[in-house]
Amino acid sequence: MQKQNMTVNKDLQYERSRCTFDPIEITYFFDGSPEKMEQRRKRERYFLDDPQLKRNIPLKFRSHKEVYEESLRTACIVLSKIKELQLSGKAGVELYMHTFGARLGSALFQDGNPLSLHYAMFIPAIMGQGTSEQQEYWLTKAVSGDVIGTYAQTELGHGTFLRGLETTATYDPKTKEFVLNSPTLTSYKWWPGGLGHTANHAVVVAQLYLQGECKGVHPFIIQLRDVNTHEPLKGIIIGEIGTKLGMNGTNNGFLGFRNFRIPRENMLMQNSKVLEDGTYIKSVNDKLTYGTMVFVRVMLLQDLLYYLMKAATIAVRYSAVRRQGQINSEKSEVQIIDYVMQQYKLFPHIATCFAIKVTFTYVWNMYVTVQGQLHQDDFEKLPELHSLTCCLKAVISADTAAGIEQLRLSCGGHGYMNASNLPIIYGLATAVCTYEGENTVLLLQTARYLVKSWKQALNGQLLPESVKYLNEAAKGIKQRSWNNDLEYLVEAYDAVAAGTIRLATENIDRRIRNGIPPEEAWNQTSIELSNCAVAHCRAFIVKTIVKTIKQSTSESDEFREVLLQLYELYIVYWILRNYGAFLQFSSMRKEDVQVLQSRLEYLLMKIRRNAVGIVDGFDIDDDILCSALGVYDGNVYERLFQEAMKSPLNNETVNISFEKYLKPFIKSNL
Amino acid sequence: MQKQNMTVNKDLQYERSRCTFDPIEITYFFDGSPEKMEQRRKRERYFLDDPQLKRNIPLKFRSHKEVYEESLRTACIVLSKIKELQLSGKAGVELYMHTFGARLGSALFQDGNPLSLHYAMFIPAIMGQGTSEQQEYWLTKAVSGDVIGTYAQTELGHGTFLRGLETTATYDPKTKEFVLNSPTLTSYKWWPGGLGHTANHAVVVAQLYLQGECKGVHPFIIQLRDVNTHEPLKGIIIGEIGTKLGMNGTNNGFLGFRNFRIPRENMLMQNSKVLEDGTYIKSVNDKLTYGTMVFVRVMLLQDLLYYLMKAATIAVRYSAVRRQGQINSEKSEVQIIDYVMQQYKLFPHIATCFAIKVTFTYVWNMYVTVQGQLHQDDFEKLPELHSLTCCLKAVISADTAAGIEQLRLSCGGHGYMNASNLPIIYGLATAVCTYEGENTVLLLQTARYLVKSWKQALNGQLLPESVKYLNEAAKGIKQRSWNNDLEYLVEAYDAVAAGTIRLATENIDRRIRNGIPPEEAWNQTSIELSNCAVAHCRAFIVKTIVKTIKQSTSESDEFREVLLQLYELYIVYWILRNYGAFLQFSSMRKEDVQVLQSRLEYLLMKIRRNAVGIVDGFDIDDDILCSALGVYDGNVYERLFQEAMKSPLNNETVNISFEKYLKPFIKSNL
Repeated sequence: MQKQNMTVNKDLQYERSRCTFDPIEITYFFDGSPEKMEQRRKRERYFLDDPQLKRNIPLKFRSHKEVYEESLRTACIVLSKIKELQLSGKAGVELYMHTFGARLGSALFQDGNPLSLHYAMFIPAIMGQGTSEQQEYWLTKAVSGDVIGTYAQTELGHGTFLRGLETTATYDPKTKEFVLNSPTLTSYKWWPGGLGHTANHAVVVAQLYLQGECKGVHPFIIQLRDVNTHEPLKGIIIGEIGTKLGMNGTNNGFLGFRNFRIPRENMLMQNSKVLEDGTYIKSVNDKLTYGTMVFVRVMLLQDLLYYLMKAATIAVRYSAVRRQGQINSEKSEVQIIDYVMQQYKLFPHIATCFAIKVTFTYVWNMYVTVQGQLHQDDFEKLPELHSLTCCLKAVISADTAAGIEQLRLSCGGHGYMNASNLPIIYGLATAVCTYEGENTVLLLQTARYLVKSWKQALNGQLLPESVKYLNEAAKGIKQRSWNNDLEYLVEAYDAVAAGTIRLATENIDRRIRNGIPPEEAWNQTSIELSNCAVAHCRAFIVKTIVKTIKQSTSESDEFREVLLQLYELYIVYWILRNYGAFLQFSSMRKEDVQVLQSRLEYLLMKIRRNAVGIVDGFDIDDDILCSALGVYDGNVYERLFQEAMKSPLNNETVNISFEKYLKPFIKSNL
Repeated sequence: MQKQNMTVNKDLQYERSRCTFDPIEITYFFDGSPEKMEQRRKRERYFLDDPQLKRNIPLKFRSHKEVYEESLRTACIVLSKIKELQLSGKAGVELYMHTFGARLGSALFQDGNPLSLHYAMFIPAIMGQGTSEQQEYWLTKAVSGDVIGTYAQTELGHGTFLRGLETTATYDPKTKEFVLNSPTLTSYKWWPGGLGHTANHAVVVAQLYLQGECKGVHPFIIQLRDVNTHEPLKGIIIGEIGTKLGMNGTNNGFLGFRNFRIPRENMLMQNSKVLEDGTYIKSVNDKLTYGTMVFVRVMLLQDLLYYLMKAATIAVRYSAVRRQGQINSEKSEVQIIDYVMQQYKLFPHIATCFAIKVTFTYVWNMYVTVQGQLHQDDFEKLPELHSLTCCLKAVISADTAAGIEQLRLSCGGHGYMNASNLPIIYGLATAVCTYEGENTVLLLQTARYLVKSWKQALNGQLLPESVKYLNEAAKGIKQRSWNNDLEYLVEAYDAVAAGTIRLATENIDRRIRNGIPPEEAWNQTSIELSNCAVAHCRAFIVKTIVKTIKQSTSESDEFREVLLQLYELYIVYWILRNYGAFLQFSSMRKEDVQVLQSRLEYLLMKIRRNAVGIVDGFDIDDDILCSALGVYDGNVYERLFQEAMKSPLNNETVNISFEKYLKPFIKSNL
């Protein structure tokens, strides 16, 4: 999307002129401070203004092979620019995350970065699992770029269930080597980003065999390709896995081994070790690896936030520009944002952006605290944090993906065009529902923690902060009668979560009493159990919102009013989306449903006036938004046309297929 | 996907061996009879076995331009084959629908057919709106293939609101011509399939101007390109609109006019007419055009059915083959279809296939009846049929799209690969939510009929069949107390629909009493109104199911049992998805929720055993399914690998980008 100096669309001008607050306050809210905003803007422009990073033919018109080549070209330029900044002392390691992340990275790369796992997984794996000698040796090579790595764990037949991995690493004490093998087709590594044609090394997770005995999965660092010629080494079968719903630039690959030997020193031995003679020394504590999983899931919340902010910006601006149909048949066509149904499709997702932001901040602080405790061998808070990040990743990725789809559909036919960028954003966001822990699996992990906590509560045990409401519920105190304070509504969320957990636990126990084995009873109750995790998560989010409201003081009154409307919308919206559970488990009565419905409609009406101002405050540059529908100046039809004119098919008035296929076909019929 | 003789996967063999009924009964159920099944299978093979229609490089690896060229090549071959069949007397016009439709067509074309609008819209428009002379002249050319047409109505700035179209056709009595113009950018035609580079003619909808007066929109037949050179004619600005979420082979185009002249005879004049001197003769009756809209929406239900059947087949077979994780930690990894959460993600969509089928059959028969009445100038039943097809198209397209996404997600990472075919099926299905009437617009059209019917019921007026329940509800009779018969549950659906409609109507009236203009009151109540239409639609579907159960007799007892389980699952599932409304408006009590939940779990358990047999009965050939995960023999990992090996990137061990980008990048860092 190129910048142009066009007049700003009149409807957008009007929307901006009547906004009741200064959108910059929203920018500060999301960036953290005016200084951080300035720094982010400067960095974004550093990359966006580089002419090498502009494309005359957008990726969407190119073949799969060309997409890869162009993505690798982009990656090399971006990395050189990062290096430049770092050498001049202007940036640290955090810049990778920034530049590869969902905000800027997905604009620079559009459909994925074939080098991202080198930084996001390969280097961290060495840092987290290598000995200090291994770190020194490999990190030097990895940071200089001499070694390009990826992280190969998932196999064609194995994802979620780590213990099921089939790749073997058998120690040969004679030569002091590990022999890597892929005994079956399903044992082929499958999915790692950059593995196809980009990486020359990988951290590979394999079953360790010592004297015929399996010791479980361990990490090994393995050279895949010749560093000079890039040819795969003998015994390495490697390639890419084909096209996907999205992320077609990431070069996801497959990898098989045929008696491939590596020196003993290439096993990453910070935790478990294999001595020269084949003696196995087991890891003392593997809880530290939990820390990494938790970290990744917390960071994903931020990625999801950026995807949703982009989609909301696009759909809100377009809804203010698009005029279609009439409300009053005697007046002219209306901005579609004036339809209450359109507001209902748009505004809850704006509110969700704020809910994700405050939740992310809260959980990030929690992570930092727990991480500090872990390094002092204090593991007490890890289970709570783990259970929280599991359900948050699941619920927020599902909400975000569904939200982006609803926002896309709210843009009608034009939302279906890639020029809107909404299909691409969806492709990136929906992937998060599956990777780093499949959502249902994660919800059931949280549910396990909740059922355990509920039983502890029944035994009178005091529970940690996030499940303290179960202590109250276990006392059997009924919720006080319904009223419409936010605090009361939040209590109702707790009542729903507690009620759902209580009922699911009773159902498991009933099944066990009826002779069903506990594991199968768990499975049979899993629909309700996953509902428990969602209800708990939703209660956690709304409580975090209310805490934030109490703490925040720095905003202007005008912005605070808008913030309150958005928070309230989130709280009311999710009651109404699931009000059966509130009728069932809280003190809500049937007549309260209508009261909340009216309140929802009132909030939509209030937010309507500031909707454009709010998404302007997200401060997403046109070059990052990459959307004809979402441009700041609102000249959406001009941009749609310009984007279409970039299609190579439009370079010629008659396509070759006329002479080749259509003309002979017509002739044959005459 | 090529056929191979591989051993059938053992898990699938076992599933098939213990199926309690003969899947061929399901095939008959969907095809209508054994004879129709045979005919369909023969026709499918006639196309699928043609070597010209096989591709060595799948479309997904190609550029946008190549996708178009390959799609046009396919279209010409398919059409020649259709012609052959027709000339030999073996098929009629219905074959176009069959070959272009969602079942076979989406397999032959994969990503859309650039010639489909010629048959689906251009020819029908001439038949429906041309005089007999016009029909004779144009249909001869169109059927012989001399003229390739499309239908151009939607404009860049105008979709839903037909009256807002801007393209003008001004009559010049001096030359007896119409002068076509595109006065603004937003007036450019945008979206018509085949318009980009394929069609040489179009039926264009434009505002008719006579002596400076606008007479509203009318259809004109317009030549766009030279029949021999295919070059656009002078005054025609034409091209394609770029890439989309799906259907990238359809060659959707844009079109602008600059003083482009056509003879007066090119206005399609079956309804309104313009005489030589410029006299306008208004159409007597335009209700007939409603008939076409209704027809298209009914046919869309069948397209949606095929998309959902395909996705369900893929996900169910894969879930039986995929083993991941453990239920009991002492046993081996389980088929993921044994997880109750997986069953919950899969089986409701199987049940939906049956619900769509019986609903489609019922509405199709209704359409045939009403169409017959229309030709005898009897328009009585048109509003009811129109209101039904509006909400059915909206609800079933939304359910199908959401269902396909859930089925895709249930396949984990591999579902994200295009080799699963699920992303492509989703792209085709989700488009239906927007075209031929945007879903929210359609729901609100149904709601208008419902509110009107409710008021008539309150006045004691007897209502047509589909809204008869409002007569009961208007009498204020409460629903008898809850029980668990299917018939009772269906009554509860009626109670929910009636309660929702009553409440929404009251809210509109309250707003009007408070001084809000009626149109704005309607808008402010539109969230509830769209809920009315959904509740009404759901009630209609479950009533149709129960009617079907009563009528059906030809099945075996074994199949009938399975059918009943699936119907019941649909009925129970949609109560639980929306049980707040049932607590609010029916006589359901809180304790009944658990009873239904247990019933849902029981049904999932029963259906589990036959799930593979049921989707086998859908009888979707591997060559039509085009899915590595859904293959009949269950060798999913072999197929995934074979599909990956078709990637042109895998033709060489080292991609050119290594020398061009990666090596210089590495060197610069050394």
